[in-house]
Amino acid sequence: MAKDKAFARLPGFRDFPPEELQIRSHVFESWRRISRRYGFQEYDGPPLEALELYTEKSGEEIVGQLYAFEDKGGREITLRPEMTPSLARILGERSRAMPKPIRWFTLPQLFRYERQQRGRLREHFQWNVDIVGEAGVGADAEILAVALDALRDLGLSQDDIVARVSDRRLLTAILTSLGVSPEAHPEAFEVVDKVEREERGKSLLRLRDGCGMSGAKAEDFLSLVGTGGLEDVHRLFGQDPGVAEALTDMRDYQEVLRRLGLGDFIQFDLRIVRGLAYYTGIVFEIFDRDREFRAICGGGRYDRLLELVGGEPLPATGFGMGDVVLTELLTDRGLLPDVSRDADLYLVSISPELRPLVHELARVHREKGRRVLYSLRSQSVKKQFSSASTEGARWVIILGPDEVKRGVAVVRDMASGTEAEVALQVLKAGEGLEGNEG
Amino acid sequence: MAKDKAFARLPGFRDFPPEELQIRSHVFESWRRISRRYGFQEYDGPPLEALELYTEKSGEEIVGQLYAFEDKGGREITLRPEMTPSLARILGERSRAMPKPIRWFTLPQLFRYERQQRGRLREHFQWNVDIVGEAGVGADAEILAVALDALRDLGLSQDDIVARVSDRRLLTAILTSLGVSPEAHPEAFEVVDKVEREERGKSLLRLRDGCGMSGAKAEDFLSLVGTGGLEDVHRLFGQDPGVAEALTDMRDYQEVLRRLGLGDFIQFDLRIVRGLAYYTGIVFEIFDRDREFRAICGGGRYDRLLELVGGEPLPATGFGMGDVVLTELLTDRGLLPDVSRDADLYLVSISPELRPLVHELARVHREKGRRVLYSLRSQSVKKQFSSASTEGARWVIILGPDEVKRGVAVVRDMASGTEAEVALQVLKAGEGLEGNEG
Repeated sequence: MAKDKAFARLPGFRDFPPEELQIRSHVFESWRRISRRYGFQEYDGPPLEALELYTEKSGEEIVGQLYAFEDKGGREITLRPEMTPSLARILGERSRAMPKPIRWFTLPQLFRYERQQRGRLREHFQWNVDIVGEAGVGADAEILAVALDALRDLGLSQDDIVARVSDRRLLTAILTSLGVSPEAHPEAFEVVDKVEREERGKSLLRLRDGCGMSGAKAEDFLSLVGTGGLEDVHRLFGQDPGVAEALTDMRDYQEVLRRLGLGDFIQFDLRIVRGLAYYTGIVFEIFDRDREFRAICGGGRYDRLLELVGGEPLPATGFGMGDVVLTELLTDRGLLPDVSRDADLYLVSISPELRPLVHELARVHREKGRRVLYSLRSQSVKKQFSSASTEGARWVIILGPDEVKRGVAVVRDMASGTEAEVALQVLKAGEGLEGNEG
Repeated sequence: MAKDKAFARLPGFRDFPPEELQIRSHVFESWRRISRRYGFQEYDGPPLEALELYTEKSGEEIVGQLYAFEDKGGREITLRPEMTPSLARILGERSRAMPKPIRWFTLPQLFRYERQQRGRLREHFQWNVDIVGEAGVGADAEILAVALDALRDLGLSQDDIVARVSDRRLLTAILTSLGVSPEAHPEAFEVVDKVEREERGKSLLRLRDGCGMSGAKAEDFLSLVGTGGLEDVHRLFGQDPGVAEALTDMRDYQEVLRRLGLGDFIQFDLRIVRGLAYYTGIVFEIFDRDREFRAICGGGRYDRLLELVGGEPLPATGFGMGDVVLTELLTDRGLLPDVSRDADLYLVSISPELRPLVHELARVHREKGRRVLYSLRSQSVKKQFSSASTEGARWVIILGPDEVKRGVAVVRDMASGTEAEVALQVLKAGEGLEGNEG
C-alpha cells in the first residue's frame, strides 16, 4: 500500500505505451500488408519451446544465448530465440498433406539472454517469411522481393538500403576449385564472414594455416571476396562446373529481381555468408547504404533444416527482419508517422439532463464505425472541449437545451472551426457530419 | 538428421497454423475495431515480469499457478498471468502527466502453470480494456458496453449471452446492515462466490459459524443473493444509507447501459463478486445464457490497485476477455467465418519465355494492393490452374504466345468461368480485371 513500493520492468524489455505501440503497429501493418500481396499466410507458434529443439541444430553461438530455464515439472525449456525451428516443427506434423509451395509468414516476439550489455535488448519482434517446398531460384527471388517491398512500403528507397546477395554453394565451389579440403571449408567461411571486421593480416594467416592456402592464393581469394563482382568470379573460376552452375543461378535470381522492379536494391557480395550453420544456398543481408546501422534483415536458403528436426525433407528459403534496427533507421530518415489521437466525434452536453441524448448519439455513431467519445461524468463545457481537443476529435456535436427544444444541435468541424445546425433526427440516424467538413 | 527425431510442442500450448490463425485474427480484429470505436488506445508490456509484481497484491490462488522461474542472473521472474499489474506498473511511471480519464486496451498472451489436467491450456490471449482516472458509474457502464459491443460485433445477441452485474459495495453494505463484522466479510464473500457450486447446507453453516449470522438470517441472505432483484434489496435494506447509495449507483449504471442500447444484455445478480481480492465496486461476468460454457469475460472496478503497486492513487475499472471460451461459443453458434484462401490474381504462362511478363504483371498488380501469385518455376498449364484454384484466385491472367503477339492476354473470372481478351497495355497499367467480373 506504501508509495515506496515502485516496481520496475525487467532489464532488456520494452513497454509499449500507446505512442510506442502506434509505431510498432505501423511497421507490423506494413509487414502484414506486403505479406498478403505476395500470397503469404500468417501463422504463429508458442513463445516457449523445448530446449532440445535448438540444441540439436544451431551453432554454439545461439545455445549460449538462450533464455532457458527449468520449469516446475523439471522440463528443460526456453523462450524462443528464433522462429525457424518452430516453423520446421509445425510443418513436420502436417507438410505431407499440404499443397506446395507453402508460403507462410509470422510476427513473433523473440528472446535472447546475453550477459547484460548496457541498453542491449533481450527481446525483439521479427517478421519471418518462408517458402517451403520449392528449390528453384524463383523462390529465393520472391523471398528477397517481399522483404524489399515492405521496406519500400515503409518509405525507404534504393538510396537508403541495399540487399547484399551471395550463394554459399558458389563460395563452396570456389574453395573446392582452390583445392581447399571440405574439412577446412567452415574455417574459410568464418574468415569470409568476419572479413569486414578482422584485420587483413589475421585473415590471411587463418586462410594459410587453417585452410592450407598458399600466401598468394589467400591474397587473391581475399581480394575476390572483398571486391569481386560476378564477372570476376566468372573470369577466374568460370571453367569449374560447380562455380558455373551457381553463377547461372545467381544471374537468373538477379534477373527475376530486376523484372520485379528491385534491380537497384541488390548488389552481389561474396562476403555475405550468414553466421548460422543451416544455410545451404543463396543468402542475403539488407543494410542501410551508409552502414550506420546493423543489418536490417537477413535470410537465405536452408534445404536441410526440416529434415533435421524430424519432418519431410523439403527445400526452404526465408528471412527474418527485426523491429529494432528498422525502427531506428525509419526514425533517422523521418519516415515514422506522427503519433496522434484521431477521434471522429466528441459529444458535448451543455446541461446534465441532456446526457441521455449523448449516450444515444454515441451508440448510433459508433454503430456507423466511428470513433466516438464523450465525458463520462457531468463536466463544464470548457472541460469537455478540452477533452475533445486532446482526443483529436474531427467533429464535436454540441447539445444545448434551447437547440434541442428546437430539434437541432450544433455540429462543429474542429479543423476549420465552422459550425452548422443539424436536425437531431439526422444525427440520430448516424448522419449529419460529413456535410459539415470545413 | 534421422527421421525418428520428431520434436513436440510443450503441453498446454497451441500452434496457430494459418487456418487457426485466421480464426484468432477474426476475434482480434473485432476486439481492436470496437476498442477504437470507444476511443481506447492500444498498449503492450513484456511477457515477463518480476515475480514480486504479483506476490504483492494477488490472492494465493494466482501465486500458486504462476509460470515462474529463476533466470540465469538469479532473478525471480514469471511469465505474466494477467495484465492489470503490468498496466499499473506502466501507468505508475507516467500517469501523473497524462490527461484523465486514460482509456487503454491490450491483447496480451497470458500464462499459467497448473498441475497438468488433461487438455488444460497453459496460455491464452486476453483482451484487456481499462478506464483509469474516472470514479463514476459512467466509466463502469462504458467498460461493460465495449465488452458487450464486441460480442455483438462477433454475431452474439441478447439471446446468446448475458452480463450478470453486481456491486461489492452493495454486498458489503448489506452484510454490515445484517450486523456481520468487517473481519467476517471475506468469508461471506467467499460463500456468495461459491453459492452456485456449493451445497446449500454447507453455505448456511459457513454463514452461521464463520460470519455470526443466525440460522434465519443466513436463510434470508442466501435467498436474497440467489434470486433477489434490485427491488428486493431496496425493500429489505433500502433504509440503510450505504445500501441506498449503492442502489442509486446500480440504477444509474443500468440506465446508461440501456441508453447505450444494451439493456437486454444485463441482469442484476448479487452472486457475482469476482474471486480476486482487488475489486472495490461494480463487478460483472458475461456468460452464455444456457450456461454451457465457463465465463466469457469478467471485470469490475479496482480503485486501489495502482496505489498498491507504487503509482498515483487513481480509480480504475476494466475487464479481461479470453480467446478460448469465446471461440468455443462462436464455434458452437456457427459464427466463425469460413477459413479460406483469397488470392486476387494468379498469373499463368503457357510457355516459359513468357515468365518475364509474369513477373512484370505481378509487380504492377501488387503495387495496386492486390494479392498476386504465380508459379515460382516453369510448370504445366494444368498445374498452374490447380494452384490458382488452391489459392482461391478470383482472376487468372493467361499469357499465351499467340495472344501476346497480338498484344492481348486472356482474363478469366474464376467464379463465373467467363473469359475475355484484354490489351496487355491495360494489364501492364494494373487495370483490366474489374471489368471482367462475372
